[in-house]
Amino acid sequence: MSVFIAPTIAMIEDALLNQQLKSILDNKTKPVGSLGKIESLAVKIGLILGTTYPKIEQPQIRVFAADHGLAKHGTSAFPIEVTAQMVLNFLNGGAAINVIARQHNMDLKVVDAGVATDFAELAVNNPQLLNYKIRLGSRDALNEPAMSKEECIAALEAGMQIAKDLEGNLLICGEMGIGNTSSASLLMAKLTGTVIEDCIGRGTGLDEAGLEHKLQVLKKVLQRYKAVTEPIEVLAAVGGLEIAMMAGAYIQAAKDRRILLIDGFIASSALLVAERLAPGVLQFAIFAHCSAEQGHKYLLKALKAEPLLDFDLRLGEGSGAALAYPLLQSACAIINEMASFEDAQVTNKK
Amino acid sequence: MSVFIAPTIAMIEDALLNQQLKSILDNKTKPVGSLGKIESLAVKIGLILGTTYPKIEQPQIRVFAADHGLAKHGTSAFPIEVTAQMVLNFLNGGAAINVIARQHNMDLKVVDAGVATDFAELAVNNPQLLNYKIRLGSRDALNEPAMSKEECIAALEAGMQIAKDLEGNLLICGEMGIGNTSSASLLMAKLTGTVIEDCIGRGTGLDEAGLEHKLQVLKKVLQRYKAVTEPIEVLAAVGGLEIAMMAGAYIQAAKDRRILLIDGFIASSALLVAERLAPGVLQFAIFAHCSAEQGHKYLLKALKAEPLLDFDLRLGEGSGAALAYPLLQSACAIINEMASFEDAQVTNKK
Repeated sequence: MSVFIAPTIAMIEDALLNQQLKSILDNKTKPVGSLGKIESLAVKIGLILGTTYPKIEQPQIRVFAADHGLAKHGTSAFPIEVTAQMVLNFLNGGAAINVIARQHNMDLKVVDAGVATDFAELAVNNPQLLNYKIRLGSRDALNEPAMSKEECIAALEAGMQIAKDLEGNLLICGEMGIGNTSSASLLMAKLTGTVIEDCIGRGTGLDEAGLEHKLQVLKKVLQRYKAVTEPIEVLAAVGGLEIAMMAGAYIQAAKDRRILLIDGFIASSALLVAERLAPGVLQFAIFAHCSAEQGHKYLLKALKAEPLLDFDLRLGEGSGAALAYPLLQSACAIINEMASFEDAQVTNKK
Repeated sequence: MSVFIAPTIAMIEDALLNQQLKSILDNKTKPVGSLGKIESLAVKIGLILGTTYPKIEQPQIRVFAADHGLAKHGTSAFPIEVTAQMVLNFLNGGAAINVIARQHNMDLKVVDAGVATDFAELAVNNPQLLNYKIRLGSRDALNEPAMSKEECIAALEAGMQIAKDLEGNLLICGEMGIGNTSSASLLMAKLTGTVIEDCIGRGTGLDEAGLEHKLQVLKKVLQRYKAVTEPIEVLAAVGGLEIAMMAGAYIQAAKDRRILLIDGFIASSALLVAERLAPGVLQFAIFAHCSAEQGHKYLLKALKAEPLLDFDLRLGEGSGAALAYPLLQSACAIINEMASFEDAQVTNKK
């Protein structure tokens, strides 16, 4: 039986650097603390990158796509074929994440983690599509684990490889997978102990009856895996191929001391998995937003996260993280470029 | 006696355009409404600019600086000379607003509305400094109205002229003026009827005793002008030269159908004045953030505003508005550039 050995993540608590960053900010020509969350962002980015001169370089977006066996039970408002159709939309530049990535000059690649459509040939001719397909969609978790343990580890390792290949020092993981809020809810319920009612939401737009049906399906899945508690077993049982791959990418990127700019509910569930598999990953996370998907609010709480935006987003793709990105750039610019009281010969507080 | 005649502001309610904008967004390749506040932003910008193809052009920042006679009573944590020192810091590019303006390629000019230092010669040689000085600081409102009615109208008209001269279609008004949270609090109390305790805050960083002292000074000012109720008289009595000029700029910019991207507490108080003098201005406002200055939360409520960010900012200068600016660009890009379900051949919701 194969085993996943997670790398050790270094701790970034550094009292001296923390003090230095705060002192630099306090000497800028503004009342102490008056740039609020921009200042805490600057400190956080400085700690992650290990420098008093934090600078974001070549920000990278990877959108992980996969299908979900469980979706055949009608847990999503959209038909399953939309996952593959959206992959083509990403490659053609027409999706929301393409638009925002272009706005901010971010590199965007799509990862086929397990879409239920063969994209092998397409990937050969299109460098924007990375072929890491583990299988044509995950298995139906109501009948058997969504992934075998081997498939799950292969997905984690593929994610780690993708992170190893990254340029720059900031990673946004986005996702596309019809039915993937169900996986995220199940992972959250199993790994945080939150009642399933607080873990679910309307996903792409379920109505009241659809939400109730989704709840009943997820309850049955939870019943089936009641005895499963090991994070990796939980991930294999109820996760998704894209979520496992994102978790692997987060683990490796944290190991390499990159900024993880976290999108919405699915991305946060992948981060939760990553943190359980490799404690310490969470330190590298900056949470872009609190989404409109009900479970996200509680998941953020469980992760002690303080999201930057509250924009009622519920799209995924990495879109919320990409929207928040310029705020991180502002934080870096403020600490690097503002004049100090001394430089500018401005009198400080009485 | 001179009279201020405010221009009539056109109403932008346009049911057809509103419907067209929403329909365009609903046909983009995403679940309906899944981009949350980005979608409402896109609709708002479309309505302001009167188009289904909203595009922000040549965004402009004007930082209005003035001193306050009332500040001699110790209502600020910083000494009065800081206003003039910060004007030089703006011109040297070292302040927070400079840094963020550079990041987003926004044009930034400083307006001397009434700094208590002579900048006439400096303005001749520096096209970044606009000399609209009405007088060397406002009068001490405890003893006489902060502005004579003539000075107040001159400030409003100067603001209107500054807006007439603007390029582009978006305006951020920033401000610098030691003691100006006091003016903003007084205007808010007089024009919204909010109790003064809810209108005040720590400004640049008053401690508990300083805040109590400020409260007592402002109560005395309110007592003095108890009988004054006309907006223009209120503005003259307790306003500031920079606030009056910002109000004039908002009025003219709304008349010319520009986007008003509103910064923090002082900027919101100027908008309140503008709305009272020229009803309809408010329609053109997009509120960038809710600041950490206590009064701002209540003022936003009184204006029925839904701010984009909640970042604990309390710097002014237009900095919060400039930080939020890329979110407006994103909203425009989304509505203009995303593919529709038909374009991308993606199947819509079941």
